[in-house]
Amino acid sequence: MSKDKPSIPKGTRDFGPATVVKRNYIFSVIRSTFEKFGFLPLETPAMENLSVLTGKYGDEGDQLIFKILNSGDFLSKVSGQDIEQGYKPLTRKISEKALRYDLTVPFARYVVMNRNDIAFPFKRYQIQPVWRADRPQRGRYREFFQCDADVVGTNSLLCEAEIILMMDEVLSTLGLDDFTIKFNHRGLLAGIAEAIGANGREADLCVAIDKLDKIGQDAVNQELLQKGFTEDAISNLQPVFALTGDIADLLPQLDTLLQNSAEGQRGLQDIRGMLSYLESFTVQKAKIQLDVTLARGLSYYTGCIFEVKVNNVQMGSISGGGRYDNLTGMFGLPGVSGVGFSFGVDRIFDVLEELNLFPQESQTITQVLISNFDEASMRYSLPVLQALRAAGISTELYPEAAKLKKQMAYADQKRIPYVLLIGSEEMESGNLNLRNMRTGSQQSLPLADILQQLQK
Amino acid sequence: MSKDKPSIPKGTRDFGPATVVKRNYIFSVIRSTFEKFGFLPLETPAMENLSVLTGKYGDEGDQLIFKILNSGDFLSKVSGQDIEQGYKPLTRKISEKALRYDLTVPFARYVVMNRNDIAFPFKRYQIQPVWRADRPQRGRYREFFQCDADVVGTNSLLCEAEIILMMDEVLSTLGLDDFTIKFNHRGLLAGIAEAIGANGREADLCVAIDKLDKIGQDAVNQELLQKGFTEDAISNLQPVFALTGDIADLLPQLDTLLQNSAEGQRGLQDIRGMLSYLESFTVQKAKIQLDVTLARGLSYYTGCIFEVKVNNVQMGSISGGGRYDNLTGMFGLPGVSGVGFSFGVDRIFDVLEELNLFPQESQTITQVLISNFDEASMRYSLPVLQALRAAGISTELYPEAAKLKKQMAYADQKRIPYVLLIGSEEMESGNLNLRNMRTGSQQSLPLADILQQLQK
Repeated sequence: MSKDKPSIPKGTRDFGPATVVKRNYIFSVIRSTFEKFGFLPLETPAMENLSVLTGKYGDEGDQLIFKILNSGDFLSKVSGQDIEQGYKPLTRKISEKALRYDLTVPFARYVVMNRNDIAFPFKRYQIQPVWRADRPQRGRYREFFQCDADVVGTNSLLCEAEIILMMDEVLSTLGLDDFTIKFNHRGLLAGIAEAIGANGREADLCVAIDKLDKIGQDAVNQELLQKGFTEDAISNLQPVFALTGDIADLLPQLDTLLQNSAEGQRGLQDIRGMLSYLESFTVQKAKIQLDVTLARGLSYYTGCIFEVKVNNVQMGSISGGGRYDNLTGMFGLPGVSGVGFSFGVDRIFDVLEELNLFPQESQTITQVLISNFDEASMRYSLPVLQALRAAGISTELYPEAAKLKKQMAYADQKRIPYVLLIGSEEMESGNLNLRNMRTGSQQSLPLADILQQLQK
Repeated sequence: MSKDKPSIPKGTRDFGPATVVKRNYIFSVIRSTFEKFGFLPLETPAMENLSVLTGKYGDEGDQLIFKILNSGDFLSKVSGQDIEQGYKPLTRKISEKALRYDLTVPFARYVVMNRNDIAFPFKRYQIQPVWRADRPQRGRYREFFQCDADVVGTNSLLCEAEIILMMDEVLSTLGLDDFTIKFNHRGLLAGIAEAIGANGREADLCVAIDKLDKIGQDAVNQELLQKGFTEDAISNLQPVFALTGDIADLLPQLDTLLQNSAEGQRGLQDIRGMLSYLESFTVQKAKIQLDVTLARGLSYYTGCIFEVKVNNVQMGSISGGGRYDNLTGMFGLPGVSGVGFSFGVDRIFDVLEELNLFPQESQTITQVLISNFDEASMRYSLPVLQALRAAGISTELYPEAAKLKKQMAYADQKRIPYVLLIGSEEMESGNLNLRNMRTGSQQSLPLADILQQLQK
């Protein structure tokens, strides 16, 4: 047995009670919004067959997948020659399973495996951890939760409008009141590439434009030049960066800019369709903005794309998503179109902490601690304890007759809002002493009144 | 990209929506009971350092731990000699992390790492998956959830009484009404070993007795003989197997049997202490039984032990636990006594299925599907959709004007209890057509009445 000071792997975290309670508050708002919109929960195993994951995230992604060593004698089928060929080919011989890297590939696998039993359009949400062997740094972990919702099997633009509504509802419910949902469309980006004379180069254009926020316009132009965009094309692009204003101003300008691009027209038509649905709904707090420079990992998305930023807080996007044409094609089932999005829980957590938006109730579990003065007070307290719990009030009795100061410190540390003091006087009178730990005030009340007061 | 039919690793499971919803119902009953008793949630990483896990589960257990291959070039520090020494020593050179095998060792590690910040007695619960490279078979999985609750840092027998109350509350709330909570005490088993003339042999005695249910009394005797118990000892043991009856009958018999054993006396004292607390509480449905042949993995437990069986159902124990003296000793922090227990969710799931105890509500997420006849009905429906959701009613609008039969089949497959039909007639009159999918009855009602009816 190791007597060394134990530790946890770098990039992973223990979540103590105070943190779990706050995280669960965020998860519960996300989950209840997903469910209110008709999404059903799915859970997939932490381990997937390595062959399911390999080749889905590019070479760099493949390196970041955590592989699981085969159990038993993993060397039994390995020869000296295998070892000489290096670790990459050897990996496949000693590892058949790996930890999931995201929730999208397992979802696609699930859809393909269960396509005959699923009612399409299939609306599923999934809230589970994923693992990546990234270099850990501030805000980047090797184990973190993803919260995804996707609809597959329909092209209806109602889904896009509802994504905006869900983003709005989750963040408004969490108390945020100044955030922007930016959207764009891959067709617009393709159309812009055409319009500036760089037909078919939207992939490179996107990669460069994606960095606009981080590196600025000049550096983006420089990158495009290095990638072989002509000076003319780059010069033609500059007015696009300047396209700002509200949606009603932008759309006519884009009509003109993209009038000769079929892809551009497709994008504009989708956007107008989505907006026409959105107009019939009330949006709570979100500002909604068309941003033609929004690019988001475009190898994957084919239609509308979304991203949410909290204004006046230093933090990357806290939610994003988009439409894709061919989710299950990687497993041989083409033609399943879908649209999905996800929330970044770690970032939302940090934003709520910074803005002090976690409600007090979201941080309380135990509501009442009954003090323990001696064996007699303890025995008197047992039915009281059970009565409080039967009324749905989370209650504990301090299990030993420790010093009152110690019991009070215990209540403080667990953030228990009430301590019920039952000493000899209280036992005699039947009026119990309820101390509010936040205000310090005390009330002497019969149990029935205490039940009534705390059940509110 | 692999175009092969994808699959999941053996021993793992996808949980589709219908199953997740039922499992979440079980988890929520367990969680809310734990919280009502003052337990706080803890979550630890799926990956632990291999050194934290190794040596805690015996040689056999060590083999069943899933190890994670080091990322990057895991061979860079491996020599040919390392490989010749076989897979066991090699494992430590190419793997530093592993998947947790249970929730107990990570809990002990957490307590040791955070001992200066924790308010003792520390009541924590933890509901997370664990992974074991066991041979998969019916009811045994390689990934499964554990639901543990433990109190560490107190010897109070109130904790033991509350474990019985929590087992009773969870299972009663889930609708079970015929189940037995068996308990025993390690001191009794040690005392019995003394009394039959096999002093100090309680470990072997327990291993054998533990199989009583499975292999019967004769086979247990045979095993004891093989392990070197004398014929006399085995003969002396036989009346112990016959010790039955209710607790009030058993205790005086045990007083006599164990009168010369300090360990036996300690056990009887603890049991009487626990029972005296329990008498002040109302137990809902559980039958409580002292079973001196209950043995449960005794290397670990030192005081009371518990196990729950559902009567008249073919199923092993669905909950169990006990007191241990030295949880954190494995990490160099001695003297932390605790008591804990856990629920077996997979088994509880099967029992509830078999007894048809999942409530209808626990299987419903989307409450209303609004039909989609054409573009006009769809647009009319958008504010209706939002009004229903705003009232807290999970609602979806079928996203396309598909055939009504297809939309009804979709509602059936998702077990949506109501379909709201909004065609031209309904749009004109403002009376919407609410169809109850279970009874087939339809009502024509204004939206306000529908909201009121469904909000009930």
